[in-house]
This record gives sequence, C-alpha cells and structure tokens, in this order.
Amino acid sequence: MRVHHDGSELYVSSQSPALGETVSLFVRVPAGVRASRIHLRRLSDGEPVFTSAVVDRTDRHGDVWWRAEMPVRNPVTPYRFLVRTALGVRWLTGAGLTHYDVPDATDFRLIAHPPPPAWASDAVVYQIFPDRFAQSSTRAMASEKDLPDWATGSAWAMPSARGPNATKVLYGGDLDGIIERLDHIAALGANTLYLTPFFPGRSNHRYDAASFDHVDPLLGGDEALIRLSRAVHDRGWRLLGDLTTNHTGAAHPWFTEERGFYYFKAGGGYECWMGHPSLPKLNWGSVELRRRFRAVTQRWLAEPYRLDGWRIDVANMTGRRGADDWTHEVATLLRRAVHEARPDGLLIAEHAHDAAPDLDRDGWHGTMNYAGFTRPVWSWLRADDLPFDDFLGVPVEVPHRDAGATVAAMSAFAAQTSWRSWTTSWQMLGSHDTARIRTVVGDAARHEVAAGLLMTLPGTPMIFAGDEVGLTGATNESARQPMPWGRPRDDATFERYRALIALRQGSEALRKGGLRWVYATGDSLVFLRESAGQTLLVLARRRAGEPLRLSGLPADTNWTNLYGGAKPLYTERDGSTTIDGYGPAFQAWVADN
Amino acid sequence: MRVHHDGSELYVSSQSPALGETVSLFVRVPAGVRASRIHLRRLSDGEPVFTSAVVDRTDRHGDVWWRAEMPVRNPVTPYRFLVRTALGVRWLTGAGLTHYDVPDATDFRLIAHPPPPAWASDAVVYQIFPDRFAQSSTRAMASEKDLPDWATGSAWAMPSARGPNATKVLYGGDLDGIIERLDHIAALGANTLYLTPFFPGRSNHRYDAASFDHVDPLLGGDEALIRLSRAVHDRGWRLLGDLTTNHTGAAHPWFTEERGFYYFKAGGGYECWMGHPSLPKLNWGSVELRRRFRAVTQRWLAEPYRLDGWRIDVANMTGRRGADDWTHEVATLLRRAVHEARPDGLLIAEHAHDAAPDLDRDGWHGTMNYAGFTRPVWSWLRADDLPFDDFLGVPVEVPHRDAGATVAAMSAFAAQTSWRSWTTSWQMLGSHDTARIRTVVGDAARHEVAAGLLMTLPGTPMIFAGDEVGLTGATNESARQPMPWGRPRDDATFERYRALIALRQGSEALRKGGLRWVYATGDSLVFLRESAGQTLLVLARRRAGEPLRLSGLPADTNWTNLYGGAKPLYTERDGSTTIDGYGPAFQAWVADN
Repeated sequence: MRVHHDGSELYVSSQSPALGETVSLFVRVPAGVRASRIHLRRLSDGEPVFTSAVVDRTDRHGDVWWRAEMPVRNPVTPYRFLVRTALGVRWLTGAGLTHYDVPDATDFRLIAHPPPPAWASDAVVYQIFPDRFAQSSTRAMASEKDLPDWATGSAWAMPSARGPNATKVLYGGDLDGIIERLDHIAALGANTLYLTPFFPGRSNHRYDAASFDHVDPLLGGDEALIRLSRAVHDRGWRLLGDLTTNHTGAAHPWFTEERGFYYFKAGGGYECWMGHPSLPKLNWGSVELRRRFRAVTQRWLAEPYRLDGWRIDVANMTGRRGADDWTHEVATLLRRAVHEARPDGLLIAEHAHDAAPDLDRDGWHGTMNYAGFTRPVWSWLRADDLPFDDFLGVPVEVPHRDAGATVAAMSAFAAQTSWRSWTTSWQMLGSHDTARIRTVVGDAARHEVAAGLLMTLPGTPMIFAGDEVGLTGATNESARQPMPWGRPRDDATFERYRALIALRQGSEALRKGGLRWVYATGDSLVFLRESAGQTLLVLARRRAGEPLRLSGLPADTNWTNLYGGAKPLYTERDGSTTIDGYGPAFQAWVADN
Repeated sequence: MRVHHDGSELYVSSQSPALGETVSLFVRVPAGVRASRIHLRRLSDGEPVFTSAVVDRTDRHGDVWWRAEMPVRNPVTPYRFLVRTALGVRWLTGAGLTHYDVPDATDFRLIAHPPPPAWASDAVVYQIFPDRFAQSSTRAMASEKDLPDWATGSAWAMPSARGPNATKVLYGGDLDGIIERLDHIAALGANTLYLTPFFPGRSNHRYDAASFDHVDPLLGGDEALIRLSRAVHDRGWRLLGDLTTNHTGAAHPWFTEERGFYYFKAGGGYECWMGHPSLPKLNWGSVELRRRFRAVTQRWLAEPYRLDGWRIDVANMTGRRGADDWTHEVATLLRRAVHEARPDGLLIAEHAHDAAPDLDRDGWHGTMNYAGFTRPVWSWLRADDLPFDDFLGVPVEVPHRDAGATVAAMSAFAAQTSWRSWTTSWQMLGSHDTARIRTVVGDAARHEVAAGLLMTLPGTPMIFAGDEVGLTGATNESARQPMPWGRPRDDATFERYRALIALRQGSEALRKGGLRWVYATGDSLVFLRESAGQTLLVLARRRAGEPLRLSGLPADTNWTNLYGGAKPLYTERDGSTTIDGYGPAFQAWVADN
C-alpha cells in the first residue's frame, strides 16, 4: 500500500466544519514505508500555506498516522501534502502520489458551505418513473377517452412504440400505485424514493412541465402525492421530486404570459432544449423567474407535500446560454430555498459529463455520477455483444476497458471533487435515460458484480426501479418498460440486490469509510473500505482466471466473508493473501478485530 | 509522434474569435498512425455536443490533417477529440491521449473574451527593480540627509543587509537612470519594460504604496516617468507598471481616511498581508474602493504617462479573505478599465502556484508562470549543491527531477489553461522574488540551457534585469543586487541571451507556433516548434551522455542549425536521426523547406 489520505472520517475530523473551526487531517504511512517529514499545504485566501504534520500514533498493523491541524478560513479549502520518503519528495493529492508538481485541480478539498443533510449518507435511492411503476388497484385502466388529446394508451406490457411518438404513450402508472408497492421497496431495503416529474406535461416523461403548481391528475393529483408522502414518511423513508429548471414545456402558461422568462429571438422563434420546440429554455436573468422558482422549490417541500429535496433536471445547462452563465447563481438560489423550507433538504444535480466545476460551491449537494461511476462500470463489465451503439451520449460503442482503466477513470473524476460532494452524489448502473444494466452486462452473474460495486464504492447508490428484478432494455424507451408485477421476474437478482443493500446498510465502513485500492488489473478489482471500527475487503472479478496474489493488506488478520460465500481469508505477516480464481464474482470480507 | 492538437495557429483558425463565429480546428495524425474516425466534442451551454471531423489534407510528410468546424457559442468553449485508431478509442485533450474517460479540466479551451493585445505575443519582457537598476548621471548619490526617515542609504554595491531591515536600504536607482541604460536593453533585444512599483512607500521594494497618485520623488517623480515612457515608446517598445491590489502600505492616506477600504476587526487590529502590519489588506467589497482603483488603473495608462498595462501584485489573494471572494470581479473590473483606457493594454497577474482557476475568464490576460515553467526548469537544471533550501516557497530544497518529470509538470499545468492564456503568461527563470537562475543552475553552461528554454518554449519570456550578465544571489534580497555597470560582468552570458532573443524574434514558429514533445528522458529534452511556414527542432541537454537516437520527426528532411553551433541534421525516411551526446547543450535547427 501507499501513503494515503482521503476525505472520509478516518482522515478528516469533520465533514461539515464551520468557518473558523480547526480540523485535524491524518495521513497514513503504511508499515514498510518510512516518511521522514510531512507538510500540509493548504490554500488560505488564495495563497499556499505550509505547516508541519506530526506523528499522531502507530496502529497495531504498524501503519503510522501523521496529523496536521487545518484552520478553516475559506468556504472551500484546497489542500495537499508534501511527503518526504526514502524515494524523495512527493505530493499527495486526490490524484495520489506524484514525483513532480501538479496543479491544484486534484487537491483534496474541505468544504465549509452548508452541508448536505446527514441522512443522505445512509440513503439508498430508488428511482421511479411514475407512468411505468405501478397502477393503483382503485384506478381503472385508462381508456382512450380518459386520455388527454396528446396521448395514446398502452397495456401494462413491454413498450412497442419507437421514435418521437414513443413519449406520447401512457401506460397509466400513478402515485397510489406506488403506495401499493412500497412493500416491494421495503423488501429490497431502499429508503429513499426519487420520482421523475409528477407535474403535468404533454409527454409520458413529464420533463415538459405545463405547470409547477399541481400534480398531474393522471397520476392522482395533489392528494395522491400527499398520500404517497405520508406513506413514505411513515416508513421513515425520504421522498424526492424532480424539477426541470432548464426549460418548461411549451404548454406552460409562462410561455405565453411571461415572455421575459424565455429567450425569444429577434427574428422570431425561441431558444429551446436541444432544438425541441416543445421545450423552451428558461432565461435565469429574469428576477421574476427566480422569485417564482424559489416559491415552487419551497412549496412542495412544505406541508402537506413534504418532499425531502429535489433532483434538478439538466442542471448542467440550466442558466447557460451563449454569453449568459447564471448556473452557479441558480444553484445557490435553489440550495438556499431548499434549506429555508427544510434544513434537511437535499439537492442533486443532473450532469452527464463532468460536474466538478459546478460542485463544491454553495449549490448542488451532489450530482448523478455517470462520468465517474456508470461509464467506468459499463466499460469494464460490458457484454461481448451489445444491441446498441452509443456510450451514454458518446458516439462510440461502449468501450472494452480493463480494471486498470476503470479505476483510473473513477479516480480521475473523484480527484476533482470533495469527498463530501462525491459521496453525496448518486452512483448508478443506469437510469430512465439509459440502457438497462442487465442488457449492458449481458447476464445475471456480471449484473451481480455491477450491483456489488454500486453498493460498496463510495457514493449514494441509486437503483432505477426494475434493475433489481433483471429488467432489460437497449434504449431508454425500451428500458422504461412497466414493472413486471404480473410477469415472471428474476428473483435471484432481487435477492442479490437485497443482500447487497443489507450489506451496505449494516456496514459503517461502506456508508462512511475511506477507500484504498488494492488491485486493479485486467479482470479483477480489489479495494478496502475502512472506518474507525471496521475494515472491509471487496473483490470484484468479471471472469474466472488465475488465483490472485494480493499484498500490502493489514497484516496477520483473519477475514470473515460477509457477502458472496467465499471461504475466510488470512493475511500473513507480510500482508499478503491469495484469492481463488473463480469468476464472475463479487465478494466482501470483514477483518476480525 | 502521436495524434496531436494544440491551441496554436497551426491547429486553430482564430485565437480571438467572437461569439457567433465558427472556428476550424485541426487534428494531426502522423504518418504511420491511421485514424478511422475523429469526433470533436465541445461543450455548448454546458452540454457536450459531438460532430464529425473530416480529412482536410495530407501533408508532404504523410501526416493527415483532420478538420472540424466549431461554432463559438460561449465565452469559453472546452473541447476535446474522440479518436478511433487501430488501438481503439482514445480521448485527445490537453493532457494528451488517454484510453479512459477523463474530466473536462484538461479539455482544450477556446476563449471568446476580449483577447490580450496582439503585441503581447512578440514581447520579450525585461523586469526592472527601480532602486537597483541604474542611477542617473544627473542625480548625485543619495546622501543620508536626503533620505526619508525610514531609509538608510547604500553604495551601488552588493547588498549586505539581511532580515527585516533589508527592505529599508535604498541604493538610489531612479527612472532617469533607466533611460540612460536603454541601449543595454536594446543590445539585448528585449522590447517590453516592466517596472516593479514606482509609487512611494516605506520600503525599497515599494509594494507598500503610500499613494497611487504620484511617482516616488526618490525615483524622479512624475516627470521622470513621462521621460522614461517617451524614451521607451520612441524605441517602439512597451512599458508596464506594477499595481498592488491586495493591500496598500499602512502609510497610505486611505488607511486613515477610508476605513471601509480595509478589514478592521471588531476586537481591534486589521487584516494584513501575511501578518505584516505595514501591509493592510484591501476589502474589495467596497464599491468606493473599486471606483478609486478603476481611476488609478486608468490614470497611468493615459497621457502623459502612457503605460501599456499592469502587472498585478498578489493577484491570487486580491479580493479573497475568509468568506469573501471578489477576485474574479476585481479581475474583470481591472481588465475592462485597462481596455477602456487603451484597447491594447495588457494585464498580467502574479500567481505563484496555480493560476488556472483565475485565467480564461474576462480578467487577467496571463500570469507569472512559476508553476508551469520556473519550478520545472529549476528542478531539472539545478546545481548539485545549493546555498538555499526552499523551492520558491515550498519548504523543501529544490528537487532533482529528470526530463520526464519536467515535461510532465509543464504539461500538467499547460493542460489546465487555454493556449492563449498560457502563451500570454510570463515564463521566467526567476524574478525579484527568487534566487538568481545562475545560482540555481550553478554555471554558465546550464544557464545557457535555461535561457534557451526560456526563449523557445511557448510563453512570453521575462528576464529579471541582471540575469543576462550572470548575476547571482541565493535569496531575493541578495538577488536584487544593483546592476554591475562599473563592475566585471559575464559578457558571454549576455551574448547568449542576445542570440537567443534574436532567435526567438526572428522565428514565427517560436513566437506563435505549436509545441510537440519529441523526447524527454533523464538529461535530454527535445521538442518541435511549428508554424505554417517554419519547423524548429530544439535540443536541451543538462549534461553530456550517450548519443540520442530520435524518431518520429518529419521524414526526409534537412535541418540547418540556427543556434548552438551543432552540425546540420538529416532525418531519414522513417523520421529518425541521431544527435551527438555533447552537453550541457542548447541547440536549435530549422527544417529546410
């Protein structure tokens, strides 16, 4: 192992410091490595300041823990360490150890802006696309005559519509239907429901809001949301909504009544999302728009709806258009609005490429981490043949990448972001906007490996409803198939998800621990998750191969298997052990204390 | 060679596009590499947009040039390429080719903010610390009784004072003295004078301004600046001043009359720079301070003083204090003030660690590139023994690093910044704030190598007066020794500087060309600088060694030596050649067309 620091509780004494506080930072020098000196470098009012770290303690494995005290002077404090070992002087940043000077972009970061709510680190999010999750028993199947003019109806079956009209097909899921299926979610172990939009629109996805003032009657209206919120909170869970801040639907009354909220062009026409005339883009230069959105944001967090926060749609584009860039102001406005309405509210921003420039501010608490989790996992675990040919918006087939490249990508994105924003961000195997993970990986065995990574790497797991029963789909439309309540489903996969969620929820190390990579080559990934009281060793392997010889692990330790059924491990005095070459495999062991 | 793009004219059709323009971008696929497809990925309103590149032409060396058209929609457009070769799919960003996903931080960047002045790319900057450069013949040596109360006088000789009192010793240089020595600067070939502060203070460095309204009478007063400006502009040169925006001196009348300009603390006392009570920190939250500074900024650019721009002292801290961060607003305010006063004004920000987060905005045109140039060069060329033990503020001795680490560091910083900001930034071997390069490298031979890199790598060379005659000094105070006009000096070093500046000024490739690294291992650095009409091959070697076998160069080409005196080269059909192992060495060849 190498000299290590990360932003977790093991290495940083406070995740949510106030300005003026002093935080203790720890650097771990593993047994076998000798550091003669360690300096902390922090930026203070924009200038690097160096202070010496001191040896705090040596643990029972011989690792030496150095400590440096850091005053929290600015809302964001980038910091790094200068480590002198027998090999020379090295920088230790979020990108690891380097023997040459590197920019501040990968510095660790301590954030003193108001923190995300405490419950977020224990959340397991379950995403529901309301039209496709469940129909309530009290509601008859929508007949054609009940449908709005823009819609056609479909039976509760695999989607068949394609192309532009696919968004006009309603399957008839509703909010009371969700209430009737909460036991399914409870059995799984998720504790946070995230609903894609429930406002009325002119599409089944409802990202074209015609109003932010009431719940779509097709979903049961405001009263149904109140019933759902009560049912969710009665179980001690959380409920999140989905707010589209980049655009509205063209059917929104603002679009005719409030022209200053939009970008109408001099020569006629107006700015819209990705060229879709149904989605006119909002102009956040408008003070009145800001006032209205503030009210919308707060209204649904208050009684009687009591949402616990929002996922913000197209957050990466919100407020950006030509020379305008109001994005950070919008994020701050919404964060403050949420916080005022309820101090424990959560605000997650959709962002499909690199959210780092928009995080670690007084704004979004986290992002949807497609870049640093979904893509790396897909490209490592993808099946040999895929029935689709784009890579989450990148115009190439999903690449085949080995474990080294997978960890390199995950680490590269993680290094740009504070630990707090990273772990509050949602890690996903897919969403309503992607192919299904089961289709990407091709079989149940690799699906288990993917779900294992989802539940054991740092970050907040988000499951798109249906993944847990092995639903498939190569496009987002086919992947949005209705939940197969009456059809055969993959109960074995459900059981694995359940066990993996239980593993996470039962493990302090998985929910709050640090991360040290042990091995990442070819077909195998091995890492440690460590908290003060618990050390987990995790193995993910995409196919069978040679036995794996690991070294540098905590020495002289017995490891009990917690997931996957492998036999116990024992690490020798030199910290080495061997794992059999079975695969695909996902295993987790806990160190006996 | 590898697939290549950089921000130079060879690869980007406009360095200063306007919003709404379309810019052509080129990717060079070297002979021997086959790309089957190339996509441009640009961010547009915060969202990645992919377009296909097409083959534009094949050049006479067999390199295939692909072209993509990019609309300039936002003031800053991050972009990268997706390249498919036989090896698979690769990203091409400012960090080079990667086989896994990387964050946007190293994307290339096209900037549509108002550009730096055109003259900046031809500037060779000569830094003068007025107290130490030259005494005018008309001014008698300052006698003790002429000196202000805080000062003591010194003969025009090596500094002997140390510690806090060192800044109180005046040597008596003045602005008319500079006028009398302009022939020296003309003989060298520099064309831009940068003066450290000329406002009165209570120290010899004058970074503790007691006024921004007049030139220090000790330097000759306002009239002397008018004379100097006229003399400089008569030669067709440029003149830059030095403005301290982070703090003033405690002797400044604002400090007693305008308390709202500073950070007075509730319990008494006030915020000051690095704890020095003589340097109270300015509070840029004050609207009136902004108004005053705007006037100061403009006043000295106007008639009759006609400065061509400012270097901004402690720009990295300016406007930052605790929860306040006005830095980007200050930079925009000053950039606009400069531009209004004179559209061809230049604004350079001091920044000693990583300026990237403060560049590529509507603000500073460039920085002082200690991080991406000075430190890498020092750590590659340092002498075996050094009479000082810090690394430009980092509490370690200057590290010994090889050529690979040197290029890795330069490239890591360059990759965070647009080509425009990078090349407008000042690259330096030292300044009034550092040890002398001659002391760092230890001898004239390595000094030549350092000066060679200064004049041939992308960036605006800045020479601290005296470097060109081999002055030494291990601390900033000893390095600020008076120019040795009457003493022996190193004329051989002067001649090398002169020849290197002439090389740069005579070469379009050096002033505006792209950069491709050819070799960077151990003791040798080799690179190409290329413009549409010229290709230069540059060799820097820190010590003698084995002959160097290079490959991948333009094939079947004769190279004529332009600097250093080596024999001509010939590259074979396979693009290879061998360079003898002499060293230390600095050589430049031009390809015959």
